[in-house]
Amino acid sequence: MRKITFGVANSLDNFIARKNHEVDWLIFSEDVTEIITRFWKTIDTVLMGRKTYEVAQSQSKKTNTYPGVKTYVFSRTLPERSGKGVQIVSHDAVSFVRELKSQPGKDICLMGGGEFARSMFEANLIDEIGLNIHPILLGSGIPLFFEMERQIDLELIESQTLKNGCVYVIYRVKH
Amino acid sequence: MRKITFGVANSLDNFIARKNHEVDWLIFSEDVTEIITRFWKTIDTVLMGRKTYEVAQSQSKKTNTYPGVKTYVFSRTLPERSGKGVQIVSHDAVSFVRELKSQPGKDICLMGGGEFARSMFEANLIDEIGLNIHPILLGSGIPLFFEMERQIDLELIESQTLKNGCVYVIYRVKH
Repeated sequence: MRKITFGVANSLDNFIARKNHEVDWLIFSEDVTEIITRFWKTIDTVLMGRKTYEVAQSQSKKTNTYPGVKTYVFSRTLPERSGKGVQIVSHDAVSFVRELKSQPGKDICLMGGGEFARSMFEANLIDEIGLNIHPILLGSGIPLFFEMERQIDLELIESQTLKNGCVYVIYRVKH
Repeated sequence: MRKITFGVANSLDNFIARKNHEVDWLIFSEDVTEIITRFWKTIDTVLMGRKTYEVAQSQSKKTNTYPGVKTYVFSRTLPERSGKGVQIVSHDAVSFVRELKSQPGKDICLMGGGEFARSMFEANLIDEIGLNIHPILLGSGIPLFFEMERQIDLELIESQTLKNGCVYVIYRVKH
C-alpha cells in the first residue's frame, strides 16, 4: 500500500497562506531544500484540491514541476480531463484515492490544505503529516487544518530545528 | 521591564481544549514537569481571561497553586474584587497589563488562549510564546490563536523533542 503524506509549510497560528493566497512569508534555506529534494525522490504522485491548483496556476508556477510525477486535482466543478501530467478528477475523491493507494508505485503527496485534506483525513487515507512550522503568526489566512468530525492520534517520527528558525516535524497517523 | 510569556499546551491543529473544555488528551512526562517547574521559578504573576479562570475553577483546581504567585483575571462581566492571591480586573486590561509590566518583579505568564491572548498580542504586550505541541489533531475545540488584525514575527529561541512525543518550542516576539 502506498503511503500518503500530507506535506505543507505553515505559520504557527495554523495558516498555509494569507487571505489573498500570498506565501511571501515562506523562508527557504539549504536544509529545507535538502529535505524537499529528498522527499520528492520518494513520490511519483501529487494530490491537491481545486483551490490549491488554481493558486498554483495563477502564480504561473508549474503544478507538475518534477518529471515522472503525476498530479491529480480534485474538483466538483472543473470538467474531468486528463492532460500532460495533470488529471482533473470530479467524481468520488475518497474512492479514487483509495484505489490509487492500492496501485503499485512510489508514495503519494497531498499538497495544500484545508477542505480537501480534511476529507482525506476523515476518510482515514493520510498516513503521515510533514509540517514546516514557520516562526510567524500571520493573524489571518487560509487555514491548514479545518474542523474535523473526529480526533486523529499521531506519533512524532521526527523533529528538526532548521537553520532559518523553522521547525520541521513528521508525524505518523495512528490508523 | 518584566517579560510576559504566553505559555500553553496545544494540539497540532491549534486547539487548547476540546469544545467541552476537556484537556484529557494532555500528556505528562518527567521532562515536561522539569520544564514547568523551571519556568514557575521565573514568574510571580499569572494573567488569564475569565473563561480560563472559570474552567480552572469548575475543574476544582486551584488557580493559584504556587505560593507567592499573584493571579489576575480579566473580565468585563465579573465584579472587580481582590482576594487571596486572585484579583478580578474589569477595567481596561491593556493599560492594566502595561502598568504591571513596568512594575518591579519577576516575569509574568499569560495562560489560556484565545480572546484574551489576542487582545494582549494586538497591544504588543507579549514577549515570548512557549508551546507544548501535542501529537494529536483534536478536530475541534477551543482555539489557541484567534484571528488577529496584524502579523507578528517571531524568532525561534528553543525547540526540544520531549520523550512523550510532544515538541516544546519557545519563540521571542519581535517587537
